[in-house]
Amino acid sequence: MKPRLLTPGPTPVPEDTLLDLARPVFFHRSAEFRAILGEVIEDLKYVFQTAHPVMVLTGSGTAGMEASVASALAPGDKAILMLCGRWGERWRNICKVHGIDFVPVEVPFGKANTAESLEAALKQHPDTKAVFTTFCETSTGVANDIKTFGSIVAKTDALFIVDAISGLATMECRTDDWGIDINVTGSQKALMLPPGLAYVSVSPKAWAKIDANKNARTFYLDLKRFRAKIAEGNDTPFTPAHTLIKAQRTSLKRMRAEGIENIWARHARMAAAARAGAKALGLELFAERPADGLTVITVPGGIDGTAILGALEKKHGLKLANGQDDMKGKIWRLAHMGYIDQFEVLAAISGLEIELMRAGRKVTPGVGVAAAQAAICEHLSRVS
Amino acid sequence: MKPRLLTPGPTPVPEDTLLDLARPVFFHRSAEFRAILGEVIEDLKYVFQTAHPVMVLTGSGTAGMEASVASALAPGDKAILMLCGRWGERWRNICKVHGIDFVPVEVPFGKANTAESLEAALKQHPDTKAVFTTFCETSTGVANDIKTFGSIVAKTDALFIVDAISGLATMECRTDDWGIDINVTGSQKALMLPPGLAYVSVSPKAWAKIDANKNARTFYLDLKRFRAKIAEGNDTPFTPAHTLIKAQRTSLKRMRAEGIENIWARHARMAAAARAGAKALGLELFAERPADGLTVITVPGGIDGTAILGALEKKHGLKLANGQDDMKGKIWRLAHMGYIDQFEVLAAISGLEIELMRAGRKVTPGVGVAAAQAAICEHLSRVS
Repeated sequence: MKPRLLTPGPTPVPEDTLLDLARPVFFHRSAEFRAILGEVIEDLKYVFQTAHPVMVLTGSGTAGMEASVASALAPGDKAILMLCGRWGERWRNICKVHGIDFVPVEVPFGKANTAESLEAALKQHPDTKAVFTTFCETSTGVANDIKTFGSIVAKTDALFIVDAISGLATMECRTDDWGIDINVTGSQKALMLPPGLAYVSVSPKAWAKIDANKNARTFYLDLKRFRAKIAEGNDTPFTPAHTLIKAQRTSLKRMRAEGIENIWARHARMAAAARAGAKALGLELFAERPADGLTVITVPGGIDGTAILGALEKKHGLKLANGQDDMKGKIWRLAHMGYIDQFEVLAAISGLEIELMRAGRKVTPGVGVAAAQAAICEHLSRVS
Repeated sequence: MKPRLLTPGPTPVPEDTLLDLARPVFFHRSAEFRAILGEVIEDLKYVFQTAHPVMVLTGSGTAGMEASVASALAPGDKAILMLCGRWGERWRNICKVHGIDFVPVEVPFGKANTAESLEAALKQHPDTKAVFTTFCETSTGVANDIKTFGSIVAKTDALFIVDAISGLATMECRTDDWGIDINVTGSQKALMLPPGLAYVSVSPKAWAKIDANKNARTFYLDLKRFRAKIAEGNDTPFTPAHTLIKAQRTSLKRMRAEGIENIWARHARMAAAARAGAKALGLELFAERPADGLTVITVPGGIDGTAILGALEKKHGLKLANGQDDMKGKIWRLAHMGYIDQFEVLAAISGLEIELMRAGRKVTPGVGVAAAQAAICEHLSRVS
């Protein structure tokens, strides 16, 4: 059976990138490595749409998130947290550990945060030092309106700090133009690499706060140490996962060749196909404001959601993700981010249709894939 | 030219382990991954010689070191730092960031810490919460007497915390028997993997301190989170570098097959060959108490140490490491740890001999490799 990985991270990695990982190990304190890191940082700047160096941390996306909290804020600093799911909770838990005086602004799972609630929170808390939010909330499939949030926070002294781990390079995101002061992503989503690296962009406004924060209680995640080593000539403060960084260069070259606008358009096309296919099957989308990197579908009444996922994996090789924690069995999470194309989305819709029919649900055969393909056609006509 | 990586990390990785890294990416929240992590933890316990689970962190060795400081100690806690080089300084810098009240016990570069100075420091500071030291100090080639230090600290309430990043699996190290409460290593040394993972063993005595330390100011490096997820069934708190973990399983199986005592003996044999070869060439060892994972040689007067290293790399494919910071050009660091055998040490001694002769130094041709081979024979006769 041919496996297809359609989970919201890790995602499939291109074959040439994987082969890079099988190459002999080389010394990391060398001109060779510095040249590689230099190229990777340049290409990351393109993907982030920023003019400023992007820090490369060895760790998961959470390491990048904690680096932003611990480097930019001091205990007792006030922060507004725009939370809309499980990954927003990650911000809350990191802020707790670091003694941040946080103000949570929450919405129920499936909803997006609103610009109005952000404006109200900033008005009520003018001493806010930072606003944290999630670009793509993979627990619910929701995308937040980062552009609008950024324009609101930019009018204040607060930093705008975004978890774009599964959002970046799946939807338009212009780090500098949109006023994102710290933007965090990971290697294992749209950047087409296995997990192990976190990437963090930092604006001049954020560096000023970081430099003023004299007693950051983190060593490994102190962003200043990364900036200093980049300035010395594209080096790293600690032994990096340098074979992953070298392989990232290969995936980034692929992204450069495709072009970031085309990458965004491809994800929008895959998302349109997934949404149209699901709706044609009589299913409902869970997310009020759906992201383009994954489509989250509400499991319909009378259907065992977990059993369907098991059948998709075992009978068809289609690996979708279940809901997490309380959401288990209640939603299906079909990811289409990174090294995935529209025909894998067709395959997923087809598999879902087959298994829904087998589970006794009435479906006109072929209606899902037909609708998905129609959406693809419509999207392609927009581009050409 | 055939390259030979003889640096003290990263080290060469076996071909089958590298090929593992080129396999398709799989989902990390799965029975497949939990089975892999379970096997890796079991094999790590064997390598560490501990009965307790070993935490697997995605990060460099420094991440493991900071995890031990931040998890076990609170600001203001007193710690004794047994420092003998650049990696000892790493303990000092981490302790500074975390507000630890540290007492440094230092020796000049090239010397080992002494049991007497540790006993004196413990007597003078009976309120010490932890003693930190370095097993193999790769900046100088020194090995500390961890067994004796452990027996001394075990008589107190203090924790014994060891940076064994480049020491573990190169020299005898019995984590439990020797009273090492927290033992830290990395994937890119004797464990024969690229960098990206840190491994941390924790004794019951250390867990008691960690559990009592209620306000650990770290999220990503909080060891309690790792223990909890292992207890749930060999899972991880954050997205791990799971393809590296899978490949680590392959290298660990190789280590199991060789046997830990045989691995220690192989490193002792390689070290004996390197030391005998260097001495036969009229060179001096820099380390007073040399480690078995690398041999550090003092550059003799009248020789440009950096130029010799350049010639070894460019003309012979032999990549040795230079001294770091102030030591640059003053020492050569020839590592023989991990996936390296005695004949690569012969190659290094041969290359050194050739380049010393080319630099005008009087050497009887072949004297270095002859002495190295004699040492190998002598060591092999001990085993059989």
